Amino acid sequence: MASDTQISSAPQSGMRDFTPADVRLRDWATGVITSTYEQFGFTKIETPALENINLLRRGEGGENLQLIFEVLKRGDKLDRVLSDAHSKATKVDRLELADMGLRFDLTVPLVRFYSQNSNELPHPFKAIQIGSVWRAESAQQGRYRQFTQCDIDMFGVKSEIAEIELLQATSEALLKLDFENFTICINDRRILAAIAAFCGFEENRFDSVFIELDKLDKIGLDGVVRELTKDGHPAAAVEKLKELIAALDPTADSVTLLNTLAEKTSADAEAVKGLQSILAVIGEHSQGRYKIKFEPSLVRGMGYYTGPIFEIKCDGYSYSVAGGGRYDKMVAKMSGRDVPACGFSIGFERIVGILADKGFVPPTSTTRLGLIFDPGRDQVSDVIKAAGNLRKQGFAVVTQAKKKDVKKQIEQLSAQGIARLCMFRGEVENPEVKDI
Amino acid sequence: MASDTQISSAPQSGMRDFTPADVRLRDWATGVITSTYEQFGFTKIETPALENINLLRRGEGGENLQLIFEVLKRGDKLDRVLSDAHSKATKVDRLELADMGLRFDLTVPLVRFYSQNSNELPHPFKAIQIGSVWRAESAQQGRYRQFTQCDIDMFGVKSEIAEIELLQATSEALLKLDFENFTICINDRRILAAIAAFCGFEENRFDSVFIELDKLDKIGLDGVVRELTKDGHPAAAVEKLKELIAALDPTADSVTLLNTLAEKTSADAEAVKGLQSILAVIGEHSQGRYKIKFEPSLVRGMGYYTGPIFEIKCDGYSYSVAGGGRYDKMVAKMSGRDVPACGFSIGFERIVGILADKGFVPPTSTTRLGLIFDPGRDQVSDVIKAAGNLRKQGFAVVTQAKKKDVKKQIEQLSAQGIARLCMFRGEVENPEVKDI
Repeated sequence: MASDTQISSAPQSGMRDFTPADVRLRDWATGVITSTYEQFGFTKIETPALENINLLRRGEGGENLQLIFEVLKRGDKLDRVLSDAHSKATKVDRLELADMGLRFDLTVPLVRFYSQNSNELPHPFKAIQIGSVWRAESAQQGRYRQFTQCDIDMFGVKSEIAEIELLQATSEALLKLDFENFTICINDRRILAAIAAFCGFEENRFDSVFIELDKLDKIGLDGVVRELTKDGHPAAAVEKLKELIAALDPTADSVTLLNTLAEKTSADAEAVKGLQSILAVIGEHSQGRYKIKFEPSLVRGMGYYTGPIFEIKCDGYSYSVAGGGRYDKMVAKMSGRDVPACGFSIGFERIVGILADKGFVPPTSTTRLGLIFDPGRDQVSDVIKAAGNLRKQGFAVVTQAKKKDVKKQIEQLSAQGIARLCMFRGEVENPEVKDI
Repeated sequence: MASDTQISSAPQSGMRDFTPADVRLRDWATGVITSTYEQFGFTKIETPALENINLLRRGEGGENLQLIFEVLKRGDKLDRVLSDAHSKATKVDRLELADMGLRFDLTVPLVRFYSQNSNELPHPFKAIQIGSVWRAESAQQGRYRQFTQCDIDMFGVKSEIAEIELLQATSEALLKLDFENFTICINDRRILAAIAAFCGFEENRFDSVFIELDKLDKIGLDGVVRELTKDGHPAAAVEKLKELIAALDPTADSVTLLNTLAEKTSADAEAVKGLQSILAVIGEHSQGRYKIKFEPSLVRGMGYYTGPIFEIKCDGYSYSVAGGGRYDKMVAKMSGRDVPACGFSIGFERIVGILADKGFVPPTSTTRLGLIFDPGRDQVSDVIKAAGNLRKQGFAVVTQAKKKDVKKQIEQLSAQGIARLCMFRGEVENPEVKDI
C-alpha cells in the first residue's frame, strides 16, 4: 500500500485523457476507416496489448526496440531474479526483470496472430487492426507514449493487386475523412537496391545509404552527399549517386522517370512491372481525386520491407499521413511458412490532429435533448416517464435538475452539443420541446 | 537483442487473439451498449491504459491490488535502483522497480480523469467507458488477464434518479443484446450497516460480516452462521443475525420485505426511501420485461460503496452479468471536492460468452461478395474496375485469385460469411452476381 502523499491527477507523461468531444471525433474517424476497409473485403481482428518480451525484442521493430514498455515479472518469478542477484552479490540484469511488454506496433503481433490462427483464417487473409500501441518516447510536443494505429494488411497475395487494394482502400478512407489534395508516393526496395548497386555502394551497407537518401527532400542533394561522405561510403559511389539523381528530370511524369531510372540501373524487371501497373491502375481509378507519383528517394524506415513501399502526403503538411509496403519474408521468420505480405498504416493521430485543427465536427445521427426538472416539485417517476417518452421519439435525453442560474445551465447544455430543450412541468405524455 | 530460439506464436497466458468472427460479435455488442447509453445522455470518454503506480496501489481496488501488471522503470531511473542495491549489497526492493501499472479497472482512472478534467466537463457528468483492463490472475478457465469492461458512471447526482437511470440504461442495453429473463437485485450499504449494528457486530468488523453474508445464496444460512462463528464474531450477534434472516418471509414482495427489515433494524430513513423509489419506478418502467427485487444479502465486494448497490442476474446463470453502486466518497479522496458518484458495469466478457454459447450471430448491414478472377487471363485493371463497380452497388467485395479447387474455394468464402459470388470473366461494367 502506498503512502497517502498527494498523487497528481494528470495522466502519465506522453499519455492522454480523451473528453467526450475528443472521443466523438476519434470514434467517427475509426468508424469511417473501418467501414471503408470492410467495403474492400478486410475484416477486423484484435490481439492482446501484451506480448512475450522475447518476441518484441527479437528485432523487427528497428529503433522501436529501444522504446518497449516492459512488464515486471510477478511473484516467485521476480523474487528468484532479485534473490539470486543478491545472494551472488551481482547487479540484477535488467533483461531478466520482465517477461512481457506492451506492443510497440501492430505488425509484430499480427504476424504472431497469423502464425497462430492461420488454420481458422481465410486465405488470402485481409486484416483490419485498430488499436493502441505504446512507446517509451521522450515526451515532446505531438509525440505520444500511447497512441492509436490503424492498419490494414494482406497475407497470401503475391501480385500487385494487394498493393493496389491497400492504396485504394486507404485513399477512399481519406477522402471520406474530409481529406483532399493528397498524393501517394511510391517506390520499391528493389529499385533502391538497384540504385545502390549501380553506384557501387557496399551491399552490406545499403541500409545506411537508404537512410541518408531518405532525407533528400529535407536536406537536398548536397546534404545527402555530405552525410554519405561523413558515413564513410566510397567517394566514387557517392559521386555516381549524385550524378544519377542530378540527371533525373524533375518535370518528367512518373512512368518516364521510373523507366529511365530502371534502364540505367538495370533494376529488377518484376519490380518495375509491378510499379508500372500500380501507377497506371491507381492513376485511372483515382479519377483526379488524388495523385500518385513514383518517388525514387522514398525509403520507409523499417528494414523488413522487401518490395513496393508507399506513403501518402497531404499538401501543406511536411509529414506523411499513411505509410506501408510489402514485407514478404516476415511470416516465414515466425512460422517457417513462406507467405507474401503487404500492409498500410494510417497515421491516426496525425489525421485526427489535422481534423481537430481545422475545427471539423463529425456528423451525428441523434439529436441530444436536455430535460430540466425541478427537484422540489417534480416527481422522480414523472421525470423518468417523460424522459422515456422523449427517448421513444428518438432523442438522446440528458435529465438534469434545475440549477439556480437556469440561463447559464442552458448555455452549458448547448456547449455540450445539446440542441433541444424540455423545461419539464409535469407533462409526462407530451413534454414540450424547443430548440436551444 | 534476444536469441533466435523459437518463440511460441500463442498469445500470452490468459490473453486472447480475436478472429474476425469474434470481433464482429464484440463490436456489435459494444455498438448496441454505446448507442443505448447515449440515448440516456451518457457520453464516451477514454483514459490511458497506464497509470501512476502509486495511484493504482493506493487502495480502492480491494484484492485487485495484488493483481497489478507493473511497468518497469526505464533508462537511468531503473539503473539507479539496481546500482544502489548492488553497491549497498541489499536485495532490490520490488516496489522500487515500477513507476506505472496497467489499470485493473475503469473506476480508479475515471475518478482521476474527473479530478483532472472537471472544468471541461458538464455537471452532472455522465460517462461511458469501454476499454481493456488487466489483472495478473492465475490463469484458469474463463478468467482472463486482459478483458473488456463496459462502465457507465454518473458524477454530481445525489438523488436516486442516478441509480434509476443507470439501471434503466443497462437493462435496456441487455434487452437489445438479446437477453431476457433477468432480474435486478438491489440493496443498500446503509441497510447492511443497520442489520450489522442491530445484531450487535463490532463496527470495525462490519466488512468481514458482509463478506460472509454475501455467500448466503451459495452456502445457505447455516453456512453463513458457521463462517461468522469461525471468524470469531460475537456468538450473540451471529445468533441474532440468524434469527433475523430466518424470520424474513421469502414469499413477501420486495417493498414489504424492505419495510419489515428497515423497521426492525431502524435503518437509515433516506436509504429506505431511496430504495422504495427505485423499486417502484423501475418496476413500473420495466413493464414486465425484466424484474427488480430487494435482496438484503447482496453485498458487492468493493469497500468504496456508500449507498445503493445492485447486480443483474440472468435465469440459468449463477453469476451476475452487471454490477454497481453508489460511491460518494471516492472523488473527495482524490480531488478534495465532495461529489456524489454512482456507477454500473456490464460484465462484458460474460455477456459475449453467453451470446457465443447460444450461437448468436449479429446482424450485418453489408452483403459481402467474393469476386474470383483468373490471374492467367484477367487484367488487374479490369478486376479492380469490376470490384469498384460492385462496391458502388453496396457490396463489400473480397477479390480473390482463382484457386485450383474452385468448389472448395467457394465453400471457404461461404464459411467466411460471404453470401454472393462473382466469377469474373472480363465483364467490367456489369459483372454477373449470384448467391453462394
